[in-house]
Amino acid sequence: MSLVRGMTRALPRSFKAAGRQPDRFTRPQISILRRHSPTNHRTSHSSASAPRDSSNPALSFPCLDAQDAKSARLSARSLQSGPEPSYTTGYHERFHSDDPLLLDWGGVLPQFDVAYETWGQLNADRSNAILLHTGLSASSHAHSTEANPKPGWWEKFIGPGKALDTEKYFVICTNVIGGCYGSTGPSSLDLDGKHYATRFPILTIEDMVRAQFRLLDHLKIRKLAASVGSSMGGMQSLAAGVLFPERVGKIISISGCARSHPYSIAMRHTQRQVLMMDPNWARGFYYDSIPPHSGMKLAREIATVTYRSGPEWEKRFGRKRADPSKQPALCPDFLIETYLDHAGEKFCLEYDPNSLLYISKAMDLFDLGLAHQLAIKKQRAEYQAKITSGGKNLNDASCSLTLPDKPYEEQPSASTPSTQQPDRTGPEPEAPPKDLVAGLAPLKDHQVLVIGVASDILFPAWQQREIAETLVHTGNKNVEHLELGEDLSLFGHDTFLLDLKYIGGAVQKFLN
Amino acid sequence: MSLVRGMTRALPRSFKAAGRQPDRFTRPQISILRRHSPTNHRTSHSSASAPRDSSNPALSFPCLDAQDAKSARLSARSLQSGPEPSYTTGYHERFHSDDPLLLDWGGVLPQFDVAYETWGQLNADRSNAILLHTGLSASSHAHSTEANPKPGWWEKFIGPGKALDTEKYFVICTNVIGGCYGSTGPSSLDLDGKHYATRFPILTIEDMVRAQFRLLDHLKIRKLAASVGSSMGGMQSLAAGVLFPERVGKIISISGCARSHPYSIAMRHTQRQVLMMDPNWARGFYYDSIPPHSGMKLAREIATVTYRSGPEWEKRFGRKRADPSKQPALCPDFLIETYLDHAGEKFCLEYDPNSLLYISKAMDLFDLGLAHQLAIKKQRAEYQAKITSGGKNLNDASCSLTLPDKPYEEQPSASTPSTQQPDRTGPEPEAPPKDLVAGLAPLKDHQVLVIGVASDILFPAWQQREIAETLVHTGNKNVEHLELGEDLSLFGHDTFLLDLKYIGGAVQKFLN
Repeated sequence: MSLVRGMTRALPRSFKAAGRQPDRFTRPQISILRRHSPTNHRTSHSSASAPRDSSNPALSFPCLDAQDAKSARLSARSLQSGPEPSYTTGYHERFHSDDPLLLDWGGVLPQFDVAYETWGQLNADRSNAILLHTGLSASSHAHSTEANPKPGWWEKFIGPGKALDTEKYFVICTNVIGGCYGSTGPSSLDLDGKHYATRFPILTIEDMVRAQFRLLDHLKIRKLAASVGSSMGGMQSLAAGVLFPERVGKIISISGCARSHPYSIAMRHTQRQVLMMDPNWARGFYYDSIPPHSGMKLAREIATVTYRSGPEWEKRFGRKRADPSKQPALCPDFLIETYLDHAGEKFCLEYDPNSLLYISKAMDLFDLGLAHQLAIKKQRAEYQAKITSGGKNLNDASCSLTLPDKPYEEQPSASTPSTQQPDRTGPEPEAPPKDLVAGLAPLKDHQVLVIGVASDILFPAWQQREIAETLVHTGNKNVEHLELGEDLSLFGHDTFLLDLKYIGGAVQKFLN
Repeated sequence: MSLVRGMTRALPRSFKAAGRQPDRFTRPQISILRRHSPTNHRTSHSSASAPRDSSNPALSFPCLDAQDAKSARLSARSLQSGPEPSYTTGYHERFHSDDPLLLDWGGVLPQFDVAYETWGQLNADRSNAILLHTGLSASSHAHSTEANPKPGWWEKFIGPGKALDTEKYFVICTNVIGGCYGSTGPSSLDLDGKHYATRFPILTIEDMVRAQFRLLDHLKIRKLAASVGSSMGGMQSLAAGVLFPERVGKIISISGCARSHPYSIAMRHTQRQVLMMDPNWARGFYYDSIPPHSGMKLAREIATVTYRSGPEWEKRFGRKRADPSKQPALCPDFLIETYLDHAGEKFCLEYDPNSLLYISKAMDLFDLGLAHQLAIKKQRAEYQAKITSGGKNLNDASCSLTLPDKPYEEQPSASTPSTQQPDRTGPEPEAPPKDLVAGLAPLKDHQVLVIGVASDILFPAWQQREIAETLVHTGNKNVEHLELGEDLSLFGHDTFLLDLKYIGGAVQKFLN
């Protein structure tokens, strides 16, 4: 710290003759330290503290220290009691199928489990079942059970007289395939007794729904009273109706979409990339080692940004720092940062990183447009034919995408934006795409409730408007659409977890 | 691949007696593979391809292969020609100050450089200078020069008859301190001849402005004709007026803010964290080694998400995949992903990672509210007193923030959102905060132009409205506010780089 050691009492700085620092007009902020040049900074009376000769002390990084400590803890644990966190509580029902499941992109699950929980009683003619679809990372534990009294993720929405009324309905919630809470996913064992890891096949929302309907077969439920879901569950809820229109009664889709859009793909892309960049991810084969907890934490922090809204944070955190008396830090410092840090920390060992990758990818791939549906149908037929003929390479790794040789180039039009107008020149400017209208045609006779939230940035309200308008264009006369303005909720995408009054109320009214 | 080997021609699946797979109502999608149990999957006629006994092939990860290859290349380079990328072109003017700069948070730059470039001629009374402030990562190269004919970042906005008219004005653009394009920053050498790295002190927007005004002193420019900036430059532009009201004429602030808000802090937080998690970051001391190119790439990808808008991407990329004939991949796959990947790739060796950390942190810390200004003023006086008395530890590393002992807890109110209403109960519901009005009072007599863009999610349009309304509340009668709707620009935050017509036009009109 030669700089500090070399200080003397404040000397009014004299302007130099050499013209570098000429007359000043507004007195600059204080500059009273003795000048040091790179060549004269080492003084003989050295002593004092490290790091020697640095003008300023090095910053410290408690957040990285914490990560290192956690890796060390996890490493020690892996020597004692097996490495990977246990994601399942075990307090759920399990449907096991020995009949293989062919997936949309040619992968095969030779056998699979679906974990599920139920509330209420199935009536005599098995006509009162509601299938409740979850968001990306939720388990089947939507509500407490006798076996597991811990509150579920929709605890207040389910029960006697509640939004999903268990006096009237038999509510079923499953963990999706690809997940890690009891249903078959990348952390499950493949036939060779080893974890699937990234040998797990690419998955779609429709694959998840097909697995759920296998469970319904098992439960001898011919037709659902309702298919209900939020977020990814809102996608599944629509997909269930499109895939099995005769087996679904009412449909509720909350904060979901009929096809993913590039902004949400972008946000999920960044989450996947930060996770995959964690060296501990090891291309998915981390189950016998330290899990990629840092990458998971980061992915969850990014996700959390998309789950809430700016206006809510403005009210809740504002610009408050965790401790304003301290020096600012590159580690979490503002209250919003400690909130994100904690959200990531809480999640990073609670959920399987590979499940996050596969399921978030499935969300990206979701598209109920007719062209996409037909393309998938065609390729499923081809995969089936290959299987039938004993062919191989259903899901050939050599097909995994590589980047195009020519990197993405900014398009010339990008530099002249003001001449670009939104493509609203048709005679019916706000009409939904015809391809989507055709894709949702199987739902034209269903009663459908669509709910959106204006403060949602991940599944923005225009996507739910799109669903509702598209359904109306199929000729559906029974579409209800509710959009919560910012005066009713600032909780963004997470509103569906929190808003008992408007969302819970609308669901209850629609079902009764 | 025992599964494939074990296949036979399609056998219609018979329902099992055991009740697991009872009567089906809608024929499920094909399930024609022969059943395998975990114990019977190893058959004797093994041959064929690896990986043996996996139900599906492992995915491949070309994006990670590319990262590994790049690390190897960078490692090889470091053995030959010195490790770190050279960020500066060298084609700029350099102002060197041997007079130290005390920073707002107690750090000291014992000497510093400011890189700058100029266009047009300074007039006789030195009254026609415009100081142009940059965004986070830009250099002083706003426009081509004789020394460096490469187009600058505002090439089309500067020149004879352009928005910044070089027939009339002398335009100065600097690289901010903390940057890496010629001004002193973390990659610069400290007095000990070693890179500052994270021994560089915490920096503020106001520190950057003070360094710029040292340059103006050097150029004998008493008063600017105008202070102009976009994004971070829009912050600086206001800060220049607040710090040096008598030395600034007109003020233009485009897509900036008067204080950062939690959503933008959150987005920058995630960028910093992904960068700092890259093992190659090495707590900032990577200058003699492989730079954290993967972390930088990820940080830039996240940033890019915030620079553009969802509606633009919807138009531009939609749901197009880079190659729809290929299997979906966890590596970049959709066109939007290849775009982000390329944006990250292009940037990751072009900019110093530590500069990104320090400057993005400076943006978080920005707050022109009076309380914050007074607090900083007080602590600057204390730091000065310490220096005067020969005290140490101006910027003590032990003060670097650690997380609070009690992790962040979801507030009870979060579960009852519908009872929470935005805090608009005052008699003047839309009035800007009094603290901010007081903080901007030094600008009450300036002509100010504030521009915002409705599709901007990083510096949302309400922030520019806040600036304008706050200025009006200071009593300023010369505030112009322009907001570009989504019909005029879908380019989000990046609009300021692209929109010559509306933004360029408004700037030109305001200055002439």
